[in-house]
Amino acid sequence: MRIALLGGTGDIGEGLALRWGVGTDHELAVGSRDAEKASRAAADYRETIAERGADATVVGASNADATEGADVVVLSVPPDHVVATIESVADTLADGAIVVSPAVAMARDGDGFHYDRPETADSVTAVAARAVPDGVAVVGAFHNLSANRLATLDAPLGVDTLVVGDDEDAAATVADLAEQIEGLRAVRAGPIANAAEVEGLTPLLINVATNNDGMHHLGVRFE
Amino acid sequence: MRIALLGGTGDIGEGLALRWGVGTDHELAVGSRDAEKASRAAADYRETIAERGADATVVGASNADATEGADVVVLSVPPDHVVATIESVADTLADGAIVVSPAVAMARDGDGFHYDRPETADSVTAVAARAVPDGVAVVGAFHNLSANRLATLDAPLGVDTLVVGDDEDAAATVADLAEQIEGLRAVRAGPIANAAEVEGLTPLLINVATNNDGMHHLGVRFE
Repeated sequence: MRIALLGGTGDIGEGLALRWGVGTDHELAVGSRDAEKASRAAADYRETIAERGADATVVGASNADATEGADVVVLSVPPDHVVATIESVADTLADGAIVVSPAVAMARDGDGFHYDRPETADSVTAVAARAVPDGVAVVGAFHNLSANRLATLDAPLGVDTLVVGDDEDAAATVADLAEQIEGLRAVRAGPIANAAEVEGLTPLLINVATNNDGMHHLGVRFE
Repeated sequence: MRIALLGGTGDIGEGLALRWGVGTDHELAVGSRDAEKASRAAADYRETIAERGADATVVGASNADATEGADVVVLSVPPDHVVATIESVADTLADGAIVVSPAVAMARDGDGFHYDRPETADSVTAVAARAVPDGVAVVGAFHNLSANRLATLDAPLGVDTLVVGDDEDAAATVADLAEQIEGLRAVRAGPIANAAEVEGLTPLLINVATNNDGMHHLGVRFE
């Protein structure tokens, strides 16, 4: 499978590239608005992956070029870049491609972090679902993972990622991709209409990390 | 310590009475709008607790009588009964008492369960905080526990409960009471202003249970 990680030079994209790079044989395309920056990140990831004895195909490209031919496109961009990023790759998104939305809109105040509903929909996942061309399915996943922990290959995961989607086949594909990462379990949370509660878990994780000694880079496990 | 469980004839109140009854020597007062119903529930709980070889003090009374002299008062009532229940016991709430709010406002639609913000505040915990008399602290806790699993003494917990409160001493007291239940870990989530994300976890837990085979009476663990 070919997976494009748009905005994949950092945040959750880096961790997904490294984890899939060492654990699978998917072709990975790291995308960025700056193709050179993407190429440098891809070279870094290849080096880290090679140190683990794996031999992954990781290329860097502009977001549009990374999207070309991708079966799955992960939007590893800030929530307010989601629509612009989709628009910038709309011409190269293949019919039948799956777009994965991990972004969460949050606001911080003096008390902590709070879910900050997007203006146009209940969740960032729903914003993405409205923005994609016909024939492209959106699946929400990877919202609640610590980017730092995911990108630290020695850090065990042992946590869950929630998957929401209106297209059952697309959601199952993304759940399967998630479970190809060692220590990650995919749990389903229903259709995209249920994404707000999934995304709202992320500010809660930050509030818990802030308010408890020794709890950092938290994930969640449903038991 | 004397703990009143208002609306304690069912839901989360039953499980808390049984778990504290077998594991601690706190005096437990089960409250109900119907004192006779409370007395019957208390007798049932005593029997269940005695079968475990414990000898707890569990009495049943009207909500107001159960509140008399209580150090901690748990509002085990539906979210839209929270204010009326507080008003009905305001005269017997001791100065310095701690009121614990575990209720969550949810609505169900065709997709799943969703957090249903109360009209007057961001969370039910905040609604309770506004309704209590001066000198009484409100702490949010026990929002995300399965009532069924809590009331099933043979069911292992191994889950977390989130604690929010503006009064640090009161929050610490409730966290300590929570951890006196075997298998339950209290994690802090900051002030009551952060309660919405805590309460929003409950509809998510139900959506996860609905959408995954073999996942029932779910709790959550931060790892």
